[in-house]
Amino acid sequence: MTSLEITKKRIELHELCTLIEETFRREGCDDANSRAVAQTLLKAERDGATSHGVFRLPGYLASLRSGKVNGHAKPKIDVTAPSILRIDGDGGFAPLAHQLLLDPLERITRSQGIAMAAIQNTYHFSALWIELEMLAERGLVAFACTSYKPALPPAGGKKPLYGTNPIAFAWPRTNNPPLVFDQASSVVARGEVMLAARDGRQVAAGIGIDPDGLPTTEPEAILKGALLPYGGYKGASIALMVELLAGPLLGECLSIEAAKRDNNDGGPPRGGEFILAISPERTCGSSRYLDHAEVLFSAMLSESGVRLPGDSRRRKRTKIEESGVEIEDYLLSILHGKK
Amino acid sequence: MTSLEITKKRIELHELCTLIEETFRREGCDDANSRAVAQTLLKAERDGATSHGVFRLPGYLASLRSGKVNGHAKPKIDVTAPSILRIDGDGGFAPLAHQLLLDPLERITRSQGIAMAAIQNTYHFSALWIELEMLAERGLVAFACTSYKPALPPAGGKKPLYGTNPIAFAWPRTNNPPLVFDQASSVVARGEVMLAARDGRQVAAGIGIDPDGLPTTEPEAILKGALLPYGGYKGASIALMVELLAGPLLGECLSIEAAKRDNNDGGPPRGGEFILAISPERTCGSSRYLDHAEVLFSAMLSESGVRLPGDSRRRKRTKIEESGVEIEDYLLSILHGKK
Repeated sequence: MTSLEITKKRIELHELCTLIEETFRREGCDDANSRAVAQTLLKAERDGATSHGVFRLPGYLASLRSGKVNGHAKPKIDVTAPSILRIDGDGGFAPLAHQLLLDPLERITRSQGIAMAAIQNTYHFSALWIELEMLAERGLVAFACTSYKPALPPAGGKKPLYGTNPIAFAWPRTNNPPLVFDQASSVVARGEVMLAARDGRQVAAGIGIDPDGLPTTEPEAILKGALLPYGGYKGASIALMVELLAGPLLGECLSIEAAKRDNNDGGPPRGGEFILAISPERTCGSSRYLDHAEVLFSAMLSESGVRLPGDSRRRKRTKIEESGVEIEDYLLSILHGKK
Repeated sequence: MTSLEITKKRIELHELCTLIEETFRREGCDDANSRAVAQTLLKAERDGATSHGVFRLPGYLASLRSGKVNGHAKPKIDVTAPSILRIDGDGGFAPLAHQLLLDPLERITRSQGIAMAAIQNTYHFSALWIELEMLAERGLVAFACTSYKPALPPAGGKKPLYGTNPIAFAWPRTNNPPLVFDQASSVVARGEVMLAARDGRQVAAGIGIDPDGLPTTEPEAILKGALLPYGGYKGASIALMVELLAGPLLGECLSIEAAKRDNNDGGPPRGGEFILAISPERTCGSSRYLDHAEVLFSAMLSESGVRLPGDSRRRKRTKIEESGVEIEDYLLSILHGKK
């Protein structure tokens, strides 16, 4: 037996979903929250996005056990202006808030042409593409961003100030799943640097700086220093925009404030999420936008080596839906209530 | 006398404004369009943004003389959904459309919370920060983007497909001008590569590729090949988002389509512009967002070496408003109707 067979087991997706739901119920979450979080974790596993899947389960559970996250959260939605939905997540994980906002956000977007969802008081611990894909599957164009805890310095600086601050964008398609990209403002995710530190590997140049602000390829030095934004000052501008959109604009916190109030239990900090939804029929006046965008996608794909964003995720989906997913034994132990 | 004294003359801003307006009138533009374009060119000169100032005058005039741009354009504004303004620029330069949309866009944004302006059928030949600063001076948060003619390859590709596709973002401040950034999706502007080619200089590595897709520092090879997006595939994702937002979403063209229908007279191609405006009072429920954002700006500025985006532009503004701007003799000749 190889070490892979020792440490992982293959499991069907529907079985995994049941195990996740039961785990959250056992940890004191109500049915609605258990189901919503399970579906979000399952979508990450289904698309091979392992780092956002059950790999995060220990962090989720730590935040329930520390009392930071409300497992019985009842998100409350208010229409604060004709095109603005404000969602108070009631201190719970973000997935239930996302499920509850889909219908009203779609309705308002179709009637107003464009709408914004301002999510406050939730704990976002997954990828943004999950909620954006659900909106684009309903025919809407969507954009989202969220901040976190400080990881990136501003342009010209050395001290972490911005979160890794991802943005995501989704575009609906007729005979294909939506085009979705979701990217952090850092060159690489913090998790990749942590894995390199664990394994004693150097990382590539240009990923981070040490506490003195000097370039380094030592993962430990970067974890004490800072990650770098992609594209220099331009990526830093994106991270700054995200701080403002997901923080002050929504009445939620900045990354530096999130870090101060977080109890560092291993789960996510409390924060805000900015979601924008647009009805393309109302902006272009017909359904022509669908074929029109395909002109661009075809031009992209006419060159060898070019793929559409999200394509590799969707290729993995097809395979995993057929044959299930491999889960590490220590995570299966948690899922079976043995830890 | 130095060569600078031979080729440039200092001129007061109000005098420059009059000269620009008269030039556009002489070339057949009506009063409204002449004034609007003059104010846009003047704002670029006022902020030391030389490459978007009267440096572009020959291109503007070429597009009037070739008959491509309508100097008597009467932009038409329709509210196509409660939160969507559609502006048909009537084939004119973009500045008059921008001026006309400010009042209705502000009104709709304040009542709806968020609104989008879909600008079609105009020729955008300046920086995006100019219209965004006007919106943020009215207390709105704003985002804009526009495409152009192909300059950047998609991730994994070699052939130009996306325009340099800038995005811009503006945030209002109380005792300071708005924070505004405006950045192309390329590492550097095409104009910088053209200047290097003219002067026989090499450019830095990582800026562009030759027609075979190979990295090069030869500016001529890049101009025949492609510029590169900042931050690799992540900047390419931003450029892709811009193509969709400023093209199919608005019922306007992609960069590859803009190139096909352009007459290459030296002026800009016809295209669309996506503008988003948000009323932060309506999204956060109070005026607290103003002080809250200053917490972030103060944290940024507490570290030496860090500046807010747009700061250097505003420092130049103060100086140029006092002492005027230096304009090359060949441009002054055009402004005096001698060319």
